[in-house]
Amino acid sequence: MTDTPVTPLLDKVKIPADLRKLEPSQLRQFADELRSETISAVSVTGGHLGAGLGVVELTTAIHYVFNTPEDRLVWDVGHQCYPHKILTGRRDRIRTLRTGGGLSGFTKRTESEYDPFGAAHSSTSISAALGFAIANKLNDKPGKAIAVIGDGSMSAGMAYEAMNNAQAAGNRLVVILNDNDMSIAPPVGGLSAYLARLVSSRPFLSLREVAKRISRKLPEPLHIAARKTDEFARGMAMGGTLFEELGFYYVGPIDGHNLDHLIPVLENVRDAAEGPCLIHVVTKKGHGYAPAEAAPDKYHGVVKFDVVTGKQDKGPGGGPPAYQNVFGETLAKLAETDDRIVAITAAMPSGTGVDKFAQAHPTRSFDVGIAEQHAVTFAAGLAAQGMRPFCAIYSTFLQRAYDQVVHDVCIQNLPVRFAIDRAGLVGADGSTHAGSFDVTYLATLPNMVVMAAADEAELAHMTYTAALHDSGPIAFRYPRGNGTGVALPEVPKRLEIGKGRVVREGKSVAILSLGTRLAEALKAADTLDAKGLSTTVADLRFVKPLDEELIRRLMATHEVVVTVEEASIGGLGAHVLTLASDLGLTDAGLKIRTMRLPDKFQEHDNPQKQYDEAGLNAPQIVDTVLKALRHNSAGVEEAGVRA
Amino acid sequence: MTDTPVTPLLDKVKIPADLRKLEPSQLRQFADELRSETISAVSVTGGHLGAGLGVVELTTAIHYVFNTPEDRLVWDVGHQCYPHKILTGRRDRIRTLRTGGGLSGFTKRTESEYDPFGAAHSSTSISAALGFAIANKLNDKPGKAIAVIGDGSMSAGMAYEAMNNAQAAGNRLVVILNDNDMSIAPPVGGLSAYLARLVSSRPFLSLREVAKRISRKLPEPLHIAARKTDEFARGMAMGGTLFEELGFYYVGPIDGHNLDHLIPVLENVRDAAEGPCLIHVVTKKGHGYAPAEAAPDKYHGVVKFDVVTGKQDKGPGGGPPAYQNVFGETLAKLAETDDRIVAITAAMPSGTGVDKFAQAHPTRSFDVGIAEQHAVTFAAGLAAQGMRPFCAIYSTFLQRAYDQVVHDVCIQNLPVRFAIDRAGLVGADGSTHAGSFDVTYLATLPNMVVMAAADEAELAHMTYTAALHDSGPIAFRYPRGNGTGVALPEVPKRLEIGKGRVVREGKSVAILSLGTRLAEALKAADTLDAKGLSTTVADLRFVKPLDEELIRRLMATHEVVVTVEEASIGGLGAHVLTLASDLGLTDAGLKIRTMRLPDKFQEHDNPQKQYDEAGLNAPQIVDTVLKALRHNSAGVEEAGVRA
Repeated sequence: MTDTPVTPLLDKVKIPADLRKLEPSQLRQFADELRSETISAVSVTGGHLGAGLGVVELTTAIHYVFNTPEDRLVWDVGHQCYPHKILTGRRDRIRTLRTGGGLSGFTKRTESEYDPFGAAHSSTSISAALGFAIANKLNDKPGKAIAVIGDGSMSAGMAYEAMNNAQAAGNRLVVILNDNDMSIAPPVGGLSAYLARLVSSRPFLSLREVAKRISRKLPEPLHIAARKTDEFARGMAMGGTLFEELGFYYVGPIDGHNLDHLIPVLENVRDAAEGPCLIHVVTKKGHGYAPAEAAPDKYHGVVKFDVVTGKQDKGPGGGPPAYQNVFGETLAKLAETDDRIVAITAAMPSGTGVDKFAQAHPTRSFDVGIAEQHAVTFAAGLAAQGMRPFCAIYSTFLQRAYDQVVHDVCIQNLPVRFAIDRAGLVGADGSTHAGSFDVTYLATLPNMVVMAAADEAELAHMTYTAALHDSGPIAFRYPRGNGTGVALPEVPKRLEIGKGRVVREGKSVAILSLGTRLAEALKAADTLDAKGLSTTVADLRFVKPLDEELIRRLMATHEVVVTVEEASIGGLGAHVLTLASDLGLTDAGLKIRTMRLPDKFQEHDNPQKQYDEAGLNAPQIVDTVLKALRHNSAGVEEAGVRA
Repeated sequence: MTDTPVTPLLDKVKIPADLRKLEPSQLRQFADELRSETISAVSVTGGHLGAGLGVVELTTAIHYVFNTPEDRLVWDVGHQCYPHKILTGRRDRIRTLRTGGGLSGFTKRTESEYDPFGAAHSSTSISAALGFAIANKLNDKPGKAIAVIGDGSMSAGMAYEAMNNAQAAGNRLVVILNDNDMSIAPPVGGLSAYLARLVSSRPFLSLREVAKRISRKLPEPLHIAARKTDEFARGMAMGGTLFEELGFYYVGPIDGHNLDHLIPVLENVRDAAEGPCLIHVVTKKGHGYAPAEAAPDKYHGVVKFDVVTGKQDKGPGGGPPAYQNVFGETLAKLAETDDRIVAITAAMPSGTGVDKFAQAHPTRSFDVGIAEQHAVTFAAGLAAQGMRPFCAIYSTFLQRAYDQVVHDVCIQNLPVRFAIDRAGLVGADGSTHAGSFDVTYLATLPNMVVMAAADEAELAHMTYTAALHDSGPIAFRYPRGNGTGVALPEVPKRLEIGKGRVVREGKSVAILSLGTRLAEALKAADTLDAKGLSTTVADLRFVKPLDEELIRRLMATHEVVVTVEEASIGGLGAHVLTLASDLGLTDAGLKIRTMRLPDKFQEHDNPQKQYDEAGLNAPQIVDTVLKALRHNSAGVEEAGVRA
């Protein structure tokens, strides 16, 4: 088939041990074949392409030089691991990437012994590699740990925390800084500028220099009395790099596409390093595939595409707008007449729609890099000085800043607005990106207001409501993907805090919905009504504060009450149940069920199947209602309740 | 009175504007008086002393030079702010520190306009100061922002994230690095070693040098094409400090106790800096008070003491051991026969009891500095390589690592053991340290097991149970302070996962307790029984997984069920209610109440008063039960339930 590239060397390599049988002179061809296979596979599946293409040579070199899987290779984020998967026994499944039952788009422990640590969120690799290195050291076992981390991931605090602790690992730890001058968006901040200066001011490292660098003793930490030695002053005057100052041997920069340089450098580090090494490798995202190299985003994430032309199969287009863009555009418009509004993103300008805001209000938009902790406390500072900051962060990434939400925002009751994208299930990105927990971890916090948008018009209203909410923190969540197609309001309206809305009035069954499961709730209501029941559907809008009046009324007047949310236990259902028991509403009997995400991390799949698995589609809502009704007629003893 | 020092200059200074009327030549005496007053006040109240004494001159100099409160002064952590409080209008209340209704032991926005940002957790100051600086810049308002941050706080990732973003603030941002070579414990890591080298290799800065430094232009970020200029290469060869590499003007080191140096340096930075400045100030914790200087912990935290001798009034001693020590000693003993056990602390070796473990097993104990994110993922790496890591972190500090708990531990189902100290209310440290949310934010996570210890013997059992739990993550929480006095087991026993215990069997009322409120539950049971009721008390031990069998049985056989926990909404009560509704147990009537922490951040006070305010003492449990019983006889209509 024309679809599959000709790959004679790659065909012989099932696992890295096979690769190591090749001659060094064959590696160039091998890498080319690996690149072709990667392009071919992703042209079928879609996924992350540019990052993988940038590390084809690095992937080859690491597996050639290091003794994987005994040497532990940890890819940061993991979205660059497709070439790695191809050469670690998973080539036969590489065209199942990101599909239900297929390979994950990230590294994953359950997939392969060559994935010793899974990822998807950034900046975890050095910490994990340190764990591997120290465990081996304690057990006196062989095995180094290699972390491969991008320059963008280096802006996150935890990478720095790990570097600060690296010395304990000795020469068992190798950090490879994959510097492609680009995370998803162009990088920001002081470190990025520093790396650019570093690369520009030094020629690519010669091999002789490598040997010198990795065995030069670093000065030991000295006590004050002994400090002012001449040797020491000379050490400082030499101008160690930032990495040397943190305790690493710095080796670089190295041309990351030149195997003739990569292989001997890695061998040298493997055999001769006297302490933890940081190898600074310069690569190009999308390298070796012209359409990717030419694209502004270097084909960071793609859908299916034509290999020859690079043209992506983006479908007919049109349709409802993405939630993120509704948020970004609404906020940009509000900011036209409100100069207190500012927007903050942590390296996700387009993913969060903050790019739309930034186009209109460039001085009031802040991309802080992959730095959610800073993003939130920075926003708190802005709020304390009278601004109206919107922190736009994905649900799972906001987990990175949970303490800042508690300590800097909620305890001080500062009006930071949290625009929480990717709330709920996310499809192909899988469990690491599923925003399952935000309702629970936010609604438990005093002072916090928590909303969920049922559709894109609601999102516009909530954006406006949040802008005007100066009395404390407020969060609103919305899902990945496109809206439902409702008309967007000309002018958003301000919602009353803590008030839900009844979307459909009925008499016997009440469905209390939070967020975008509302559409399924309405479908379920149609089905129930067709069966002779009369169904109320309420969109609660707020999980904190709850609409106590509405909930009491619906509980008092309906035979069955079901809550539906795309969130884990502890969220809407828990808050409604807690209210009911506080009020004594369960005392004389209350037929209530809570539908929520299951107590498991769901694998990647298409969203519809994920909702089915979660049990949050209309048929399952119907089923829950009918079972609850039957439970009554069949007698309560059946379920083990007291007689 | 002999208790109050003679302070003629301080007596004239109510607020910083008064201070600025003094001549520079008077500042030495002023600082001495401020130090005496600080010592005198803390001798009465107890609290954080060493840190405040170290910054007396710095506090004086900042308020003298900068235009507070318009210039925004942000103290990192805030435990060094007692001198600051004395000279910002709070001297009349300084002897109420940390007592109910009195001054907070930290900075607090609600206390004073001179506290623009509250703190207590570390490393937030630069982010917040950036927020202030940028807000002023956007609004074209005057006012700089000054962050004062210790070298220990610099090990946390968020400080680095903020530094990485500092350039946007221009010269409105001043960071003062208060380098006392000590956080609570001696500092660890590469940055600490780097700072020591920096101080040792440079003499204290001359004024002339200051002027040069703060107006030397830093190179702009350049694009690759333009990079290799001679000027640029020279810039690199000069050996900029780590801070310069991140975009700061570095000024230092400065003797932080010499006002003749501090004042002109600060003035120079205030007036002449062309970009964000980092002033590296070297101080001594406990400076100027001999007993503090002589103590190993520099009087970091003290109880009441005698000013002349420095002798602390530690009371009679004896009594039950502190929970943290029961944990540390139990773990140390288990590790004698289990060399897979390792312990990790984030700069809290004595606070977590990990010091006890470290004494016995120094190579298997890791203090990673203030770096909770790294601590957790490092532990995950260790677990993935077959170790049995215990991560000992306070409840509120674990919030710093929430994403790592989710992404690196739970999703991968790695057996990291979380020993969660300071769970629940904590008394004088107040809301920032109250461990209110861990039950909720952990029990919502798939794969996680969550336990709470009712007393110190239970803590020993849970430590052992966790050690043997290799199938996934497990967490156990326990409070601040001393145990209840129960006998510690010779050999801890392994608890069955997800099984509670009935402590006392009754017939009509069931109290389901989680954690240390068990003692109050038992007292309440005595009272209830004396009123003719028959009360069961169960210690559930596990909130996840719940003991479904036990809960069903108690619900089926008791008239009223009450849950009691020292945790926020979404915890035990929510999980029990969710189980009950899942099983249909509320359908025919279930008289259940959940007692939990209130939906507010409780102010610092003594613990007993905090529990009263929270409504979690025995009388309130009794009251809740009786009200629930009355609710029945009075008729359900009263509470608005359907007829």
